[in-house]
Amino acid sequence: MRASPRGMTRPTSGFLLRPIARVAGGFSASSASIMSQTTTTYAKRTLSTTQPKCLSLDNINQNIRGAKYAVRGELAVKAEEYRRRLADGDKSLPFDSVIFANIGNPQQLDQKPITFFRQVLSLVENPLLLENQDALKNSFGYKQDVIDRAQTLLANVQSVGAYSHSQGAPGIRESVAKFIEERDGFSANSQDLFLTAGASSGVSTLLNVICNDADAGVLVPIPQYPLYTATLALLNAKCVPYLLEEEKAWGTNVAAITQSVKEAKAAGTNLRAVVVINPGNPTGASLTADDIKKVIDVAAEEQLVIMADEVYQTNVFEGEFVSFKKRLRQLQQEYPGTYDAVELVSFHSTSKGMVGECGHRGGYFELVGFDPQVQEQIYKLVSIGLCPPVVAQCLLETMVNPPRPGEPSYELYEQEYNGIRDGLHKRALALYDAFQRMEGVECQKPQGAMYLFPTIHLPAKAIEAAEAEGRAADEFYCLKMLDATGVCAVPGSGFGQKEGTFHFRTTFLAPGTDWVERIVKFHTEFLNQYR
Amino acid sequence: MRASPRGMTRPTSGFLLRPIARVAGGFSASSASIMSQTTTTYAKRTLSTTQPKCLSLDNINQNIRGAKYAVRGELAVKAEEYRRRLADGDKSLPFDSVIFANIGNPQQLDQKPITFFRQVLSLVENPLLLENQDALKNSFGYKQDVIDRAQTLLANVQSVGAYSHSQGAPGIRESVAKFIEERDGFSANSQDLFLTAGASSGVSTLLNVICNDADAGVLVPIPQYPLYTATLALLNAKCVPYLLEEEKAWGTNVAAITQSVKEAKAAGTNLRAVVVINPGNPTGASLTADDIKKVIDVAAEEQLVIMADEVYQTNVFEGEFVSFKKRLRQLQQEYPGTYDAVELVSFHSTSKGMVGECGHRGGYFELVGFDPQVQEQIYKLVSIGLCPPVVAQCLLETMVNPPRPGEPSYELYEQEYNGIRDGLHKRALALYDAFQRMEGVECQKPQGAMYLFPTIHLPAKAIEAAEAEGRAADEFYCLKMLDATGVCAVPGSGFGQKEGTFHFRTTFLAPGTDWVERIVKFHTEFLNQYR
Repeated sequence: MRASPRGMTRPTSGFLLRPIARVAGGFSASSASIMSQTTTTYAKRTLSTTQPKCLSLDNINQNIRGAKYAVRGELAVKAEEYRRRLADGDKSLPFDSVIFANIGNPQQLDQKPITFFRQVLSLVENPLLLENQDALKNSFGYKQDVIDRAQTLLANVQSVGAYSHSQGAPGIRESVAKFIEERDGFSANSQDLFLTAGASSGVSTLLNVICNDADAGVLVPIPQYPLYTATLALLNAKCVPYLLEEEKAWGTNVAAITQSVKEAKAAGTNLRAVVVINPGNPTGASLTADDIKKVIDVAAEEQLVIMADEVYQTNVFEGEFVSFKKRLRQLQQEYPGTYDAVELVSFHSTSKGMVGECGHRGGYFELVGFDPQVQEQIYKLVSIGLCPPVVAQCLLETMVNPPRPGEPSYELYEQEYNGIRDGLHKRALALYDAFQRMEGVECQKPQGAMYLFPTIHLPAKAIEAAEAEGRAADEFYCLKMLDATGVCAVPGSGFGQKEGTFHFRTTFLAPGTDWVERIVKFHTEFLNQYR
Repeated sequence: MRASPRGMTRPTSGFLLRPIARVAGGFSASSASIMSQTTTTYAKRTLSTTQPKCLSLDNINQNIRGAKYAVRGELAVKAEEYRRRLADGDKSLPFDSVIFANIGNPQQLDQKPITFFRQVLSLVENPLLLENQDALKNSFGYKQDVIDRAQTLLANVQSVGAYSHSQGAPGIRESVAKFIEERDGFSANSQDLFLTAGASSGVSTLLNVICNDADAGVLVPIPQYPLYTATLALLNAKCVPYLLEEEKAWGTNVAAITQSVKEAKAAGTNLRAVVVINPGNPTGASLTADDIKKVIDVAAEEQLVIMADEVYQTNVFEGEFVSFKKRLRQLQQEYPGTYDAVELVSFHSTSKGMVGECGHRGGYFELVGFDPQVQEQIYKLVSIGLCPPVVAQCLLETMVNPPRPGEPSYELYEQEYNGIRDGLHKRALALYDAFQRMEGVECQKPQGAMYLFPTIHLPAKAIEAAEAEGRAADEFYCLKMLDATGVCAVPGSGFGQKEGTFHFRTTFLAPGTDWVERIVKFHTEFLNQYR
């Protein structure tokens, strides 16, 4: 009954990243891992038929095939396998626990959710609980402000089971606007806010709008969170990398950006946007107000949309977080007219910070200086997906509008929030100290986010051994580390790095510090073996 | 500081739907409304600057500009405006309530969530509640099976605040596989299941994979839910419409499909998939096993992926729902070899059925007969978005694995479930009866889904009056209906319809039946006015 296989469809342009001359390892990151679950090995299953199918690897959307995302690699699979073996009682491994330091997923690593948030969410999920407030208070310790908040949210959304406005419930957007105003000291308009299912979906939306053809290019910092390169690949647009300055605490180097702009233009790229991740992922860097101004200057000069990924804005240990919006508004006041046309989008999330509610998929983006007609198209685009998860919208509201001093839930909230913050800082410093003690390892002092991204100077013999296995040297190192310690980190090649340098990224989310000592011991042994 | 505006970027191919010869109204649906909230009138706000911006309507991704989605139209805005005026005490309107019959959003229309689902979700949101099970039982009536289920789910996902596997938590996928096996009597594999944020996101994922270039075409039923045409427009792929047979209860007409296939091929379209919505949206039709076989035959013959939108599978009043998977497996048994290569994807959702949990954004798709290498690429694609909302995954689990006879929560569950089902059926019949009484209105007997989609024969004078306003006649009719009755429906032009015919879609979700009588009265007056 089947017709003979049709002629193969002409694939679209295939691999989409421009070759990056100065960046080694690219974004292939075959062994890197952002997520730590078991992966399904489809490819190993055999086809049940020899008849031709419509879809094959060669005739699906080749942009998808070309996209790289460091998720399903060897390291994560191996780590999950080790976890299972330990759970099954296997005593043959040289460690007694697997540490998933490869992904910013705090509640996987036993970070407790903040009580106020979850109490409110339990009530919006089951409003019938509100019919016995005495029992809520007496048997479960719910405070009046929890009950009040749940009632306010329910009045806003009617039911968390009903579709909301596609931009998010208006009342919740009002709360977010107030939060931004308090943070920056400049006004925010709820009409310019779009609630999202995590920051990732917002980034995808914006890149989708911005990338108008195959010549469109977006400046992306290197190292970067691979969402950006993957999404650009899906959109058949060009990633234009600019290197961050490791020696200056991973700051932005305006000369590097300018150079990338020049080269991209010479290559015929239509530059449209610049991505900044602040605080940085994977670098952990926190940008100064001056660094931020430099980026805004380039954007104003080159007429680029600024995409400010600010999901780690509360994860700042050194100095103070300055938002791009605040800095832009300051510049607009200081130099009237000069910065008026700048277009900025800022992303935030419920997944990071001390909230760490990754699984809820909440977040928002704020548009600043966008053409209203463009904004209307963005609205249409998001409306096709109907609305972000309403429970996550409620969670976002509690995040931006937490209990205030004097309110019944404040004390516990403050205690939990500070406990998480201090724990993160303490573990970051312990890790940093450990890296200081490790030969051939250099690490910037922890400034923010959830990661450290040390340079590792690897002996020539180790690099040769890696090459013999067809691996990047830092990938080889991370695999050996996992085998020896149970600690799963991500090699720098998963994020991009300067040619000839090697790094790995580790979160400092895992409880305790014994796993840090495992890394130190492994490192010494590794060096001794390959010296 | 700004450079002069750069040369305008060459737009990509712009409006992407092929002209549809036999379909009037197309998909513009400017006044149609799927959602009922106030919309933001960006376009009315003035730009604060005269400096050139990077993004303008003319240089953003023109696929977005070309996409039509019947969401933000005049009707919904007007309905919301009327709702506000009534809420503010305005007595000047000829009705005392607005009925949002334009969107399948049951909990917006006061459908109560099913208690078992929400009790479980309250516990997964706040597991601390589990520490006082006596109080849960005695003060709130939680049964043991609610507590057990929450504990099982928590063991599966660890925390609803942690990212899950990108395909969804493995244990939850196992439950979905069991549900499919029980439904169809054929095996299902959790590795072939992908949990999603509502069916819409799954449809988007699959169309993204399937559409490999600008010649790629997908067969879409007319009338259709405009998600399909909008997504194809975003992907710069071709919508190849095939007309459903209104006179045969909106069944699929294999001759119409074959004719569309022939025309599309002649026009150089690379046909890749066929969409079927069963039970139908907006038609409410429920396909017979024979109709389903016809579609499978065409797919096998033409080597097309079958995209079966089965989100209304429990909303069936007449006959019995037959899944495409079941029918395909039967055919594979009956005709060994003939159907082995067929590729099918089936979508399901927590938003419809008696569940109606639209705001949670839950759902799944099952892949049948896909090449494992293609499946691997689909996994990579979804992993870029990390994971579907974990609370929605838990909700999906309770939906596919509800309380069974003999379990403590069964009785209440059954009562609530049947109450919703019977209420929907009763209101569907009341609406159908009303349409029977209306001159020049023909309606198929309610079979399934949440909608009726009657033909309206409009007088020439009404059609002229509509033309004078630059409107489709059914849009004109729906606007007049809203003004006179407060009932908001969607004109057939929002879904596509046979040339020269007019329809409107109304849900039968709104409580009570008095609003139905408002429509009857309006219709008579309208006819009298334009006769």
